[in-house]
Amino acid sequence: MKTVSVFGTGNVAFHMVKAISLLKDYQIEEIYGRNESKVNDFCNQFTFDLNRVSSIEELKPADFYLVCIKDDAIESFIEKIARPEIICMHTSGSLDLLDKNCKNAVFYPLQTFSKESDLNYAEIPFCLEAEDNFIYKAIEGLAQAISDSVFSISSQQRRSLHTAAVFVCNFVNHLYATGEEICEEKEVAFEVLKPLIKETAEKVQRLSPTEAQTGPAKRNDQSTINAHLNLLGSKKHKQLYQQLTNSIIEKYEQKL
Amino acid sequence: MKTVSVFGTGNVAFHMVKAISLLKDYQIEEIYGRNESKVNDFCNQFTFDLNRVSSIEELKPADFYLVCIKDDAIESFIEKIARPEIICMHTSGSLDLLDKNCKNAVFYPLQTFSKESDLNYAEIPFCLEAEDNFIYKAIEGLAQAISDSVFSISSQQRRSLHTAAVFVCNFVNHLYATGEEICEEKEVAFEVLKPLIKETAEKVQRLSPTEAQTGPAKRNDQSTINAHLNLLGSKKHKQLYQQLTNSIIEKYEQKL
Repeated sequence: MKTVSVFGTGNVAFHMVKAISLLKDYQIEEIYGRNESKVNDFCNQFTFDLNRVSSIEELKPADFYLVCIKDDAIESFIEKIARPEIICMHTSGSLDLLDKNCKNAVFYPLQTFSKESDLNYAEIPFCLEAEDNFIYKAIEGLAQAISDSVFSISSQQRRSLHTAAVFVCNFVNHLYATGEEICEEKEVAFEVLKPLIKETAEKVQRLSPTEAQTGPAKRNDQSTINAHLNLLGSKKHKQLYQQLTNSIIEKYEQKL
Repeated sequence: MKTVSVFGTGNVAFHMVKAISLLKDYQIEEIYGRNESKVNDFCNQFTFDLNRVSSIEELKPADFYLVCIKDDAIESFIEKIARPEIICMHTSGSLDLLDKNCKNAVFYPLQTFSKESDLNYAEIPFCLEAEDNFIYKAIEGLAQAISDSVFSISSQQRRSLHTAAVFVCNFVNHLYATGEEICEEKEVAFEVLKPLIKETAEKVQRLSPTEAQTGPAKRNDQSTINAHLNLLGSKKHKQLYQQLTNSIIEKYEQKL
């Protein structure tokens, strides 16, 4: 049985604890959070018992230290907990593989995590990196126990994926929010758009998004574009509409 | 048994024919397309026989004429096929309820249609409008036979929904395509992003997108934003990143 200690009390930590607790060859050693009452709240969300610790000095050793804390705190934190015999993994998309006094590795689950979501862990892509092949094999074993989708990804590739993820997740969600604002303004239920949102995401599971593109901008249909611009009440919606429309027209104009 | 003739040979026509052919109280009377060989190709996609017609003069009467042709051709086309006793419905999100010499109605399925997709018709929102309550009840009967999600929507509301749909479908897909371009440029598989795309769409089925927003722009995390801007190779990706980031920062800055 291998042991994993999880550091952090946010959404990534939550889902990693849930995922690892389901495995037969791995067990959670401890949960660390620097705020004692936060760690207690975090651990009390689970139906099983978890050892908790709030002081670095009291940390037990484990085969893996899985650090799920904020990006800007990771480096100095791993500096403090590093031990030469322990594999210390961070879970950040934008941070390089570190070079601390431990077995350095990256264990980046490329998904958006919220406590409300029941995720199918087998489908989460894990992007892995390690400073040597021996460490890589060890973290790959853990990732493959959780998921069917495990990739060896360099720091540079991971940064690119993280940037692309901002487009397909954060920016996409902002467009959903803009759709919701338009519905509220015009007193129609945002509900009506939900199946379209789902199918638009489904479509690119099978088709390339470049092939899947439809709409007035792709056709450069100026009369529909102008009708939409006139209908939009807020200046910021008009601006976003114009910018995205221009970007689509530019992409497809050679193909028209 | 009520009869429906379908006009057009595109993706909307395809799925309407498929959906209606499954109903027990409705049957397809004829498929109309002005190009004979196109109509034949269209009809040959189905496993059942369909009557086909390419001349307006030879059109048979039916309880419903369902017009699934391009927006800019609809008005003049319905002008030609209108008969006072027939309910003529168009399927456009941006066109008003017409005032032709027929029973005027709108039958707008708010979904993105492609031939490759197996859609669950019961989940498609149908946005209906008719010039009187009698006609409305008739088209509502047809819509409810197909779907569990039927809405009475005015022309003005429909235009708003159509505009919001451009944001949550066409623009969203363009961001997927941008993510794909970044992956290609940096030689990582776009595949890795697909579960994230799916979960981002799933999340707003339950949560408001304004609540679901995450990412560096929401936190106004300038160091990550700048790292992403530096990493992006193409000027148009940088521009899109900056515009969407600004729009998110503006939305949340009061809340930070």
